[in-house]
Amino acid sequence: MYTEVDRQFMSQALAQAQNALYLSNPNPRVGCIIVKDGVVIGRGHTQRVGGPHAEVQALADVKVNGFDAAGSTIYVTLEPCNHTGRTPPCVDALIAAKPALVIVAMSDPNPLVGGKGLERLKAAGIDVRCGLLESEAQALNQGFISRMTRGLPWVRMKIAASLDGKTALPNGQSQWITSSLARADGHHWRAQACAILTGVGTVKEDDPSLNVRDVETQRQPWRIIVDSKLETPLNAKVLSNSKGSGVILVCASLDSQESQDKAKAFKALGVEVIAMANANGKVDLPKLFLYLAKERHMNEIHVEAGFKLNGSLLREDCVDELLLYYAPLFMGEGIGMANISPLTNLDQRQDWQIIDQTLFGSDLCLRLKKK
Amino acid sequence: MYTEVDRQFMSQALAQAQNALYLSNPNPRVGCIIVKDGVVIGRGHTQRVGGPHAEVQALADVKVNGFDAAGSTIYVTLEPCNHTGRTPPCVDALIAAKPALVIVAMSDPNPLVGGKGLERLKAAGIDVRCGLLESEAQALNQGFISRMTRGLPWVRMKIAASLDGKTALPNGQSQWITSSLARADGHHWRAQACAILTGVGTVKEDDPSLNVRDVETQRQPWRIIVDSKLETPLNAKVLSNSKGSGVILVCASLDSQESQDKAKAFKALGVEVIAMANANGKVDLPKLFLYLAKERHMNEIHVEAGFKLNGSLLREDCVDELLLYYAPLFMGEGIGMANISPLTNLDQRQDWQIIDQTLFGSDLCLRLKKK
Repeated sequence: MYTEVDRQFMSQALAQAQNALYLSNPNPRVGCIIVKDGVVIGRGHTQRVGGPHAEVQALADVKVNGFDAAGSTIYVTLEPCNHTGRTPPCVDALIAAKPALVIVAMSDPNPLVGGKGLERLKAAGIDVRCGLLESEAQALNQGFISRMTRGLPWVRMKIAASLDGKTALPNGQSQWITSSLARADGHHWRAQACAILTGVGTVKEDDPSLNVRDVETQRQPWRIIVDSKLETPLNAKVLSNSKGSGVILVCASLDSQESQDKAKAFKALGVEVIAMANANGKVDLPKLFLYLAKERHMNEIHVEAGFKLNGSLLREDCVDELLLYYAPLFMGEGIGMANISPLTNLDQRQDWQIIDQTLFGSDLCLRLKKK
Repeated sequence: MYTEVDRQFMSQALAQAQNALYLSNPNPRVGCIIVKDGVVIGRGHTQRVGGPHAEVQALADVKVNGFDAAGSTIYVTLEPCNHTGRTPPCVDALIAAKPALVIVAMSDPNPLVGGKGLERLKAAGIDVRCGLLESEAQALNQGFISRMTRGLPWVRMKIAASLDGKTALPNGQSQWITSSLARADGHHWRAQACAILTGVGTVKEDDPSLNVRDVETQRQPWRIIVDSKLETPLNAKVLSNSKGSGVILVCASLDSQESQDKAKAFKALGVEVIAMANANGKVDLPKLFLYLAKERHMNEIHVEAGFKLNGSLLREDCVDELLLYYAPLFMGEGIGMANISPLTNLDQRQDWQIIDQTLFGSDLCLRLKKK
């Protein structure tokens, strides 16, 4: 059904989609390659929100290059959209361009619209195939797929630790356990997230900026602070404007006058304050992620928190992926990775699956998915 | 200097040496291939102590196969010995066999005898070359090289832990954190050690046998228990006869009548008891390893101990290699990997170097060397 040449062009389309990795959130990362007589005549990838999608970008590139897309083969990594959002439907643009064949890597994961774009193209007399390098295309958009199919963002928890699982010395010192190469890899993951989530404990102890610095990016992720009692210092670095991205403070309740006064002070700094409590008077973490997907269209959340919040997120089953950086040293006493309630039996364990292991300089990065 | 054919035959000699991995301690693992007219006419590897060395074994194989080694090329992974130990010098046997050429992977690491075997061969008119696949040959005999060059065994510390560095639940449960595949790999490392070393704490808590079960072996390593006050229970499994291998109990002092009485009871079970104290009245660990190399000819020590002894061994700089098995789960509270005194600054860290990372089933095995 597909030739080796098809595979090569779809790989090029996937490479185009990679260009949207830090850019297109919350839109999916999509790449498009337009080929005529064996020659690539146009390329495109999803731009920032409100900008053109990959297909429209690639069709424009064809014109800039002095070609005509009529009779071409179009390789696109995600089913073209058939609905009007911030931009008109890509399907209309494709039909107008009169290609002979459209090859798609994966269909739209949204069960309400999946397949409809392909049907429109077929109805217009265009030959359509779907499924080439599908899993590679899915891997690029895990967060988008998660939001569309589960109504939840894909939550990735990053922890840097010693071989014996300590994230800081007993005196709190943690800069730097891992090497600069490992930290730069961490920024690569920050950059592709819709938001970086932390807890008030980390803000008070480490005063991190939680922005992207070690890799180049045109946009900064949102910053979300889980802070039941609104104890974040008003001069915390994380609250300062990070090139236009926002900050959301999540507390348990805004019922008291005191919390409303605090919220007012945060709002004066441009910080959003929302409240969602669970039965224990703490922030309702599962509800928070539902909110972030449904109301804020967030695909991927990058967690960089401490012992307590990491533990709560793991215990409440909010984490889809672990990103663990191990530095090759022992620390002995110190602060642990996650406050899991002590198990009384190993049968109570939650097993993960190692999906990647890579060295960054002297450090090991393990990626794991929930089993 | 060497042809691709030479490399292939030396690789075969190294594969022969692998056969001696669980067998030849404390003799080095050596393999030998004898080739005539492009055909392998004999193979051999070091047998158990007192049995023939690889060269003599291979020359005997030549005769069994109905050939004559005169004019042959002999590939051997370690310089043939020129001294009479439990067996006559291999050099004499080689000279008598009249090969045309002897190719050696590595010279004898013992600085007192290194090169002399090669000189004897040359003096007998045999063409001799040395250094082909040298590092591969060295990797097979790290412990032997360590003993010959440093007067110390190569000490490998094995720890199985969760992702967050716990080796047991707070209630002591540790069977089984890692999978059966990881445990079998652990037995592969046990089998090649001269001795397995543990502490009295592990003996009392886990009552392990510390013998080799998951891989096939003709010999069992010695078992060494660090037990300052001779508190090992007389019915501990580790004291029972493990197919002829011995047990050494290492206490701090045998000066008191009580300790002498205890020692007598252990000796009645066939267990050796030795005493070596440091200034703090604990077992002098660096001195113990010097003793094990010099007096007991031990090449590789495999440590399977607990939090306290692991910490002492690391703090006293007795460990050359770490063998860490991580199971993909968090345990939260529990028993740590090694009792390192708390560092007050990350500058005090001791860095290791990751030299291997392999998955065994669901678990990751990291090997690290001292940096």
